[in-house]
Amino acid sequence: MKTELNPDISKALSAIRGREIRNVFLVACGGSLSIMHPGKYFLDRHSKTLNSDVYNADEFIARNPLKLDENALVILCSQTGTTKETAAAAEFARSRGAATIAMTLDSDSPLGRTAEHVLNYQAFYTTGIPIDAAESNYGVLYMLLAGLVNQTDGVDIIPSLLSSLSHLQPAIDKAHEVFAPMFDDYAPRLAKKDVIYTLASGANYGAAYSFSICVLMEMQWINSQAIHANEYFHGPFEVTDEDASFIVMVGLDETRRMEERARDFALRFGSEKNVMVLDAKKLDLSGIDEAFRGYLVPLVFFDTLWRFAYRIADLRNQPMLEGRRYMKKISDY
Amino acid sequence: MKTELNPDISKALSAIRGREIRNVFLVACGGSLSIMHPGKYFLDRHSKTLNSDVYNADEFIARNPLKLDENALVILCSQTGTTKETAAAAEFARSRGAATIAMTLDSDSPLGRTAEHVLNYQAFYTTGIPIDAAESNYGVLYMLLAGLVNQTDGVDIIPSLLSSLSHLQPAIDKAHEVFAPMFDDYAPRLAKKDVIYTLASGANYGAAYSFSICVLMEMQWINSQAIHANEYFHGPFEVTDEDASFIVMVGLDETRRMEERARDFALRFGSEKNVMVLDAKKLDLSGIDEAFRGYLVPLVFFDTLWRFAYRIADLRNQPMLEGRRYMKKISDY
Repeated sequence: MKTELNPDISKALSAIRGREIRNVFLVACGGSLSIMHPGKYFLDRHSKTLNSDVYNADEFIARNPLKLDENALVILCSQTGTTKETAAAAEFARSRGAATIAMTLDSDSPLGRTAEHVLNYQAFYTTGIPIDAAESNYGVLYMLLAGLVNQTDGVDIIPSLLSSLSHLQPAIDKAHEVFAPMFDDYAPRLAKKDVIYTLASGANYGAAYSFSICVLMEMQWINSQAIHANEYFHGPFEVTDEDASFIVMVGLDETRRMEERARDFALRFGSEKNVMVLDAKKLDLSGIDEAFRGYLVPLVFFDTLWRFAYRIADLRNQPMLEGRRYMKKISDY
Repeated sequence: MKTELNPDISKALSAIRGREIRNVFLVACGGSLSIMHPGKYFLDRHSKTLNSDVYNADEFIARNPLKLDENALVILCSQTGTTKETAAAAEFARSRGAATIAMTLDSDSPLGRTAEHVLNYQAFYTTGIPIDAAESNYGVLYMLLAGLVNQTDGVDIIPSLLSSLSHLQPAIDKAHEVFAPMFDDYAPRLAKKDVIYTLASGANYGAAYSFSICVLMEMQWINSQAIHANEYFHGPFEVTDEDASFIVMVGLDETRRMEERARDFALRFGSEKNVMVLDAKKLDLSGIDEAFRGYLVPLVFFDTLWRFAYRIADLRNQPMLEGRRYMKKISDY
């Protein structure tokens, strides 16, 4: 059972204790950017003093927000630490006097070497070694933000978070079994699709975004888009028909009703055969506090969907990581 | 030549002068939400005191940010004023003590009646009557935000904005001619596509989003997504091939280099036949201050692209507004 924040997180928090942090910039690219959305959701709901913004790293540099100064904390993430834009964003932030904390697998990477503080996390799909989800990018980000809110707002939700994180990996392991029959059922149909949308809101939006752009588009060359569950009704829903494919995330945060509404519409005007619904109410989340279920469900969804992605990859005969044609294959762009 | 802010804008600004506004929430749905992105871009670059957030209206209510209080200003927009989620968001914001300013065509609509202050704007595509783009949703939002920044930060860029807005409609009229041959060339090919992506960054992102979801998806049932020009390189670019279709916006704000990079990649690994580039450097923007060109270019792009959309609609034999099957056709969802 986790009872304390990771030492590197505590150390980074101590180091910025003296600063009067007002603005938090959550900066990354692609899959690493996706975790920043639930990070902001968490801050919006737990801090009365911290403003937060989520930016693609290169947008952050070019936009050059006026509020980026010595009262800002910039949290950056890159799995390998080699994402050029993110390392450049860390350097840019430091030049403006902001505090910088990087999350990466490799402290000795360009990002790791550039940021003032470095937090390590674990990733199964890069290393192939089973991990504890408490130590994943999401887990580490939530620990950092809970610690930060404790410092700035005096609200201590750290014990509840740590205890919840300790029960996360068993919940994920059980979720694989819960969703397996559904994945078996949908994989042969969805593997044949040229377009698959994901639908989500609130804390789940990042997981939907990441599955769309990093898995479906990047690794399987399937056209995709993460559609916000309410924005769906303001244009995108018009593409819904018998053949349209959706993966709908229905989570447990305050926005669940939006995801339910999108699910209901897609099932009513689309075909149940092509609308795959991941409903967190079907999961055994024992030991995870009610207050944190909404935040941890996207990890469960994303982790289980990887299994689905490998099923799709097999059926399409297009291996996952090896399937890329540009990323890490060419470099002069 | 415009020399003063619209009277309703001045009146709303006067009314909130006494409040110590710290947080600006930019709240709407769909096409009306799209203008809020450049609104935030403007605030990020011009205000050191104001924090701003862009939210879908229903997400805003469900998320219920802790910072929504009497020091918050909530700016809402709905063309008809009948968007239920947006009217509900105005009521929710008032119940939390925030100042509310609504933008709509109809002051006597649910949104108009709910918000504390109402700003009218003009829209050609709803009324069919030619308008002055200075009085469009974008124009009114920029005037409001410039007035707000003047009040909170003491920076007066209003004269430059007003003079620039006065030259906007002629610039749009000329842009139609500049882009017409390109639209003639690309329409027959893109009209046959099942998937068309838009690519943009910075102040243009909202226009790309709106064209994707409100025009391509909603009115033409073409699968689409607005891809951020740098995020493109972190996953989505893997779908690029000879058949992939992109509409690339290359504007004049600080993020232009990102849009150029995305354009170059799409042209290199895609086919020039399927990659349509709107480059603002080809436009005659006489009279628009350098400092405002980046902010006004998305209006030019969006307005001209409507002509392109009508060409597509003719070729697909699917009328624009009449082409919807759910929106304003059924109501029980």
